[in-house]
Amino acid sequence: SNSFNSKDHPHRRYNPLLDEWVLVSPQRAKRPWQGQQEEPLTSVQNQYDPECYLCPGNLRINGVQNPRYEGVYVFDNDFGSLLSEGVSFDKTEDELFQMKPERGINRVICFSHDHSLTLPEMSVEAITNVVSVWKEEYQNLGELDYINHVQIFENKGAIMGCSNPHPHGQIWAQSSIPSQVARTQQNLKNYYDKHGTTLLSDYLQREIEINERIILENKGFVALVPFWATWPFETMIISKKPLNNLLAFSHEDQALLAQILKDLTTKYDNIFSVSFPYSAGIHQAPTDSESHEEWHFHMHFYPPLLRSASVKKFMVGYEMLAEAQRDITPEQSAEILKKSSIIHYKNR
Amino acid sequence: SNSFNSKDHPHRRYNPLLDEWVLVSPQRAKRPWQGQQEEPLTSVQNQYDPECYLCPGNLRINGVQNPRYEGVYVFDNDFGSLLSEGVSFDKTEDELFQMKPERGINRVICFSHDHSLTLPEMSVEAITNVVSVWKEEYQNLGELDYINHVQIFENKGAIMGCSNPHPHGQIWAQSSIPSQVARTQQNLKNYYDKHGTTLLSDYLQREIEINERIILENKGFVALVPFWATWPFETMIISKKPLNNLLAFSHEDQALLAQILKDLTTKYDNIFSVSFPYSAGIHQAPTDSESHEEWHFHMHFYPPLLRSASVKKFMVGYEMLAEAQRDITPEQSAEILKKSSIIHYKNR
Ligand SMILES: O=P(O)(O)O[C@H]1O[C@H](CO)[C@@H](O)[C@H](O)[C@H]1O
Ligand SMILES: O=P(O)(O)O[C@H]1O[C@H](CO)[C@@H](O)[C@H](O)[C@H]1O
Repeated sequence: SNSFNSKDHPHRRYNPLLDEWVLVSPQRAKRPWQGQQEEPLTSVQNQYDPECYLCPGNLRINGVQNPRYEGVYVFDNDFGSLLSEGVSFDKTEDELFQMKPERGINRVICFSHDHSLTLPEMSVEAITNVVSVWKEEYQNLGELDYINHVQIFENKGAIMGCSNPHPHGQIWAQSSIPSQVARTQQNLKNYYDKHGTTLLSDYLQREIEINERIILENKGFVALVPFWATWPFETMIISKKPLNNLLAFSHEDQALLAQILKDLTTKYDNIFSVSFPYSAGIHQAPTDSESHEEWHFHMHFYPPLLRSASVKKFMVGYEMLAEAQRDITPEQSAEILKKSSIIHYKNR
Repeated sequence: SNSFNSKDHPHRRYNPLLDEWVLVSPQRAKRPWQGQQEEPLTSVQNQYDPECYLCPGNLRINGVQNPRYEGVYVFDNDFGSLLSEGVSFDKTEDELFQMKPERGINRVICFSHDHSLTLPEMSVEAITNVVSVWKEEYQNLGELDYINHVQIFENKGAIMGCSNPHPHGQIWAQSSIPSQVARTQQNLKNYYDKHGTTLLSDYLQREIEINERIILENKGFVALVPFWATWPFETMIISKKPLNNLLAFSHEDQALLAQILKDLTTKYDNIFSVSFPYSAGIHQAPTDSESHEEWHFHMHFYPPLLRSASVKKFMVGYEMLAEAQRDITPEQSAEILKKSSIIHYKNR
């Protein structure tokens, strides 16, 4: 029989952050596509849109008027998934029907007053302001006694359920540690207890040595396609130092994260010369007042596109019931991302 | 403060099959939708489509001709995610870079020769034939020494990545037990070891007593919205007896499963008077020659639609990074599904 080769043969890879496997099928990239096509994101032209509920000075659906803000602007989501009031609750023990109230705050963060921009089109300085507001929000929300976790994320593109092209992200702060984060934390902790170093420090060092999946690197951060990536162009940004959370960021760290964010999102846009959709978010220590030595700041990018601006990867059927599956190898994706320019296609 | 009420207050529910939580936000159903709209599935009119690679007698892309089959027809996927040949492999121990070859077989199962049909439009008899082919495939594939798990599923609708409306499903058989199944199995086993009964027997009995989330029931099976449902109209079909896998099915069981499949998918179509998209699949014991007392046959339905035939639930951002979240309660969905007729809207 043939000897195994990860470029040609189906295989599974292990994701140590989630303690689960992903099925990689390199031979499948050849299959013809006859399925659904997406509308590619067309660029927004106007810096101000009178219909946009995020633009400065506009009325929101609930009648509140946005201030005439410049730069970053944060407010409570008008249709949040959480409510900040506490409710009384009699805990009952029932193994099969467990339910408990959840308290929290949903915030919306406009990255810019300019309706037409996206992160890659903003200056490093302007993105640095976004990062420092993330830090502020993490701090202020985290200090509330009933908030134990602050999830910062961005959904970009209609294909990712984002209903407004105005550049913005969200923050969901809550009492419980969400399932995915709790799992990640458990795996980080197991590793830290065993080795005395963070999983991501050791992983990053190995990736830098191997130098096959690294996309970008600066003094503070590395962007790479993880060995266990699930989405076709999935990447992670990892801090070089084992920073616990945003509070450990110096001014310089904030600017360095902004720089790598700009370059990575520019590379994404350049792959298919479109505004590249994704969900992205930060994983960092919960705000539950524990020390969390095991945590190591990182950011996940989960973009849905696979073959072109209009053909996405469907995580359905087998993936929902059995296991994540990908059609090109992480190394092939890394190759494409490495070749992609850091000069935005609109500026060429 | 208010006292907790699961109809009005955000809360979390526990999924004992996956050992994870889902965030339920009943108050969020009111938010306006300005995002992406889907093309509803239009019905297929022609019983035979000369362009369809699944229709009887047609040529597939790789040049193979389908037989002029009647009823159910199964063949190996031309662009599978797995390959059946073994490859030699030197196992290396590396905590952070674990990878191993995966061997398997991908099959496609046409439910009918008739291009225009879908499961709810087929007769119970014809669906019974589908069930008995599932059983046959589970048996034949499972008997191969390198196959330890057989995943049977259906992706329905372009929105679910299904590239062809011809009624069909898939079977992915492989050496390893996929991540989701392994997790489910672990939780089923923990429960069985503790109680000496299957988790789903005890759960089902309680649901029948409560009678709030039960959609359909016959002599052999129950269809319900699980207490911990994630997708807006997620359901499960559970066998009343703790049947391990399809091999334990009598002829009568096969017909009873077919009956409930027809009625459930009919109810789905009737909610928005469209062919209702979903991914569905069977969870049952792996074919690894262990006895697996803990396993209890069930089928998951994960439909993406939320508000209408064209507005789906996006599992993005917070959901990808943190935790599944839903906007209407499982009880509200159950109410809608209970009211929905078992006479298909096309036949009225
Ligand atoms: O095999 P198909 O129908 O071409 O492909 C579809 O189902 C597969 C199994 O769920 C997924 O991996 C694909 O992403 C999806 O497009
Ligand atoms: O809050 P939005 O942008 O209206 O909504 C979007 O992001 C949320 C958080 O990821 C998801 O729960 C929604 O399904 C999605 O449509």
